[in-house]
Amino acid sequence: MLYCVMMDVNVPADMDPAELAKLREAEKNRAIEMQKSGKFIHLWRVAGRPANISIFDCESNDELHDLLSSLPMFPYFSIKVVPLAKHPSSIK
Amino acid sequence: MLYCVMMDVNVPADMDPAELAKLREAEKNRAIEMQKSGKFIHLWRVAGRPANISIFDCESNDELHDLLSSLPMFPYFSIKVVPLAKHPSSIK
Amino acid sequence: MLYCVMMDVNVPADMDPAELAKLREAEKNRAIEMQKSGKFIHLWRVAGRPANISIFDCESNDELHDLLSSLPMFPYFSIKVVPLAKHPSSIK
Amino acid sequence: MLYCVMMDVNVPADMDPAELAKLREAEKNRAIEMQKSGKFIHLWRVAGRPANISIFDCESNDELHDLLSSLPMFPYFSIKVVPLAKHPSSIK
Amino acid sequence: MLYCVMMDVNVPADMDPAELAKLREAEKNRAIEMQKSGKFIHLWRVAGRPANISIFDCESNDELHDLLSSLPMFPYFSIKVVPLAKHPSSIK
Amino acid sequence: MLYCVMMDVNVPADMDPAELAKLREAEKNRAIEMQKSGKFIHLWRVAGRPANISIFDCESNDELHDLLSSLPMFPYFSIKVVPLAKHPSSIK
Amino acid sequence: MLYCVMMDVNVPADMDPAELAKLREAEKNRAIEMQKSGKFIHLWRVAGRPANISIFDCESNDELHDLLSSLPMFPYFSIKVVPLAKHPSSIK
Amino acid sequence: MLYCVMMDVNVPADMDPAELAKLREAEKNRAIEMQKSGKFIHLWRVAGRPANISIFDCESNDELHDLLSSLPMFPYFSIKVVPLAKHPSSIK
Amino acid sequence: MLYCVMMDVNVPADMDPAELAKLREAEKNRAIEMQKSGKFIHLWRVAGRPANISIFDCESNDELHDLLSSLPMFPYFSIKVVPLAKHPSSIK
Amino acid sequence: MLYCVMMDVNVPADMDPAELAKLREAEKNRAIEMQKSGKFIHLWRVAGRPANISIFDCESNDELHDLLSSLPMFPYFSIKVVPLAKHPSSIK
Repeated sequence: MLYCVMMDVNVPADMDPAELAKLREAEKNRAIEMQKSGKFIHLWRVAGRPANISIFDCESNDELHDLLSSLPMFPYFSIKVVPLAKHPSSIK
Repeated sequence: MLYCVMMDVNVPADMDPAELAKLREAEKNRAIEMQKSGKFIHLWRVAGRPANISIFDCESNDELHDLLSSLPMFPYFSIKVVPLAKHPSSIK
Repeated sequence: MLYCVMMDVNVPADMDPAELAKLREAEKNRAIEMQKSGKFIHLWRVAGRPANISIFDCESNDELHDLLSSLPMFPYFSIKVVPLAKHPSSIK
Repeated sequence: MLYCVMMDVNVPADMDPAELAKLREAEKNRAIEMQKSGKFIHLWRVAGRPANISIFDCESNDELHDLLSSLPMFPYFSIKVVPLAKHPSSIK
Repeated sequence: MLYCVMMDVNVPADMDPAELAKLREAEKNRAIEMQKSGKFIHLWRVAGRPANISIFDCESNDELHDLLSSLPMFPYFSIKVVPLAKHPSSIK
Repeated sequence: MLYCVMMDVNVPADMDPAELAKLREAEKNRAIEMQKSGKFIHLWRVAGRPANISIFDCESNDELHDLLSSLPMFPYFSIKVVPLAKHPSSIK
Repeated sequence: MLYCVMMDVNVPADMDPAELAKLREAEKNRAIEMQKSGKFIHLWRVAGRPANISIFDCESNDELHDLLSSLPMFPYFSIKVVPLAKHPSSIK
Repeated sequence: MLYCVMMDVNVPADMDPAELAKLREAEKNRAIEMQKSGKFIHLWRVAGRPANISIFDCESNDELHDLLSSLPMFPYFSIKVVPLAKHPSSIK
Repeated sequence: MLYCVMMDVNVPADMDPAELAKLREAEKNRAIEMQKSGKFIHLWRVAGRPANISIFDCESNDELHDLLSSLPMFPYFSIKVVPLAKHPSSIK
Repeated sequence: MLYCVMMDVNVPADMDPAELAKLREAEKNRAIEMQKSGKFIHLWRVAGRPANISIFDCESNDELHDLLSSLPMFPYFSIKVVPLAKHPSSIK
């Protein structure tokens, strides 16, 4: 089941660079892990903003929440979740 | 080059049903045509709303505009376009 | 799987009363039918507004969309869907 | 009398983890206590967000306020309260 | 139990004057009736706007909804309801 | 002359409790003083939120500003002022 | 006593030109009348928009409402009223 | 003096096609005329929307208003005007 | 050329009082200076809010920016600038 | 390919002046560098606000993102990107 997830990243501008780099590294690893699991099927950068638009494929709302809240940078995200359904005009 | 396009469909509730059905048919054909061309790579329904979230792959902003404004229901859409870039954590 | 669905009803103030009454009747019957099916588990009126807050229990986003778009008054609704998950502090 | 209460949790990302854990524990206990009292009848997590949608059953607006403001994390909440009434199409 | 009710009146500018006058008359009578019943305890005009701020004193959310939806101009209102509680600094 | 004043209280969640208690005490005394002066005629708590809806009766906009800005917690308020006039349907 | 009044003019684009011209004429005369009375002390056009920013000098909120609601185009206005007070840094 | 002008075009979807075509033609001619006069120095389409972002170079706010309100489709525009100044980092 | 400038003052509630008083003093002097220069022709307090509505008379957008950004409290302001033009119904 | 980029600068009012000056200097140099490269073709100050409106000419969304995120003050910006296309009425 698909969800469009829009994540704005709100990192304080004066955050300690070393701590931020470590956090980004952990975030990247976790994101790669999820993509390889097949749950996190698209991840695009919003051009010009510290934000991304992603597509998740999960069994349930609960699974989606567990995945998103497991992201190391979850406390720094403003997230909007849009549940998706099959469009009658889609050829997929 | 990818764009996330969010389309809200604002059809007057009292629109003539026959006219609307004809318009939807033309819209569906045009959308299928564009998907087959490879420009319109994802089309998802927003669950619960007359709206969709789509991903377009175009050569330029101009091509994107030409495609979107060629949709028969374009006059009934409120559209938001988000230009996408490659995310450093994406495995694609 | 639970969804909170917030429906604002935007009926034109000058709509033909007879037509509106017929539409409301069909809406009521369909809503009762869905509640009896176990998919539509809570339906509350927002005090003071032509709006309701509902809880749906569906197998998927697609099923939710099919149910909502089958409501006779769907063209008159502005709908917001919030996917729900189990809260760690819930005793249910 | 029913109220839909939407709570967004705004905990500073750099809050001391130990202090936050203690606060969450107190919050959980208080929430469970209220649920057992029958005043707090539904508590759902908003999938993907540090937020919940809840239904309270109180004797009055005053009782609702006393309950909500007694929550240990009340200072970290942005709360929207929607008073609910019986919907004519509800089968309950 | 008190509620602050904010009503914006959205009458189409080109509505038939005679019909509007009749509607306003019915609205005024109903409003006076409710004030005399003790349920509708304050009614103020928002200076400069076709809008009012009112205070209702009702037994329940349901009673509030019944009263508001019984107003002849209810279909032309955008209403916001704020449930009120006793303020610890109020001397009343 | 009446004004509806809506005050949202934005106290930092990590404010020193002792300092906050002192400030609240001063605020309460000042609010009581104003109510006794007849200028501050209604003070209601917004159920579920650190906010209030108040009615002031002042000679002028200037007097209203002087009163509000004299409140000890004024720096922590987001205030919206709505000037009120007599409503033609009010029986007062 | 001063008020800043911001008026957006929402005339339907397909309104009968002759009727609109007559309405504008009546509006202009009424506006000139009020300015000559000393109540309507500034009237500026918002560059690029069918809107104006005005300053009224009235005895009370009620007088302001009576003046504004007497404008022929009042039904076509969205109005925001900001009550003004003397600024401590103003040299007037 | 430069202004950034953002114009959203709100043409009713059911407007008579012939009338709309005539209006668009007049609009195009007027826009070309203004560009040739040197007042209207940039005109870009917002990709995916019936909207444009333009840069005007005018002697005054009044001149800007006269130019914009002279556009045949002015009644169908929602316009936002942003006055521009020289940026200290601009190399022009 | 006239501009309506709306300034909201966002001073952190816990700012050092002495530093703030010094800043306000500098702000007041600069504001008086500008008013005496004829550029800053109206300055009104928004009743009930740390905000003001002002009218500037400048030769250009650039001059306006230089004046506003020279205000000592500029870093604490949220500013909205509305370029004004002569209104056809104004008697000035 | 053109993009309109709107940048609001949110520098904390109490940021260390020396550090800020250094950052601004680096920002200015980088901006000049980009303008000389032909990618950053217009940079205007929004009169009265710490904000700018810019036009970029890039090969792709990715190039735009790389340029913007390379700006030293990127962490302090709120950015809105609007992809632009050729307008049928533009004479360029």
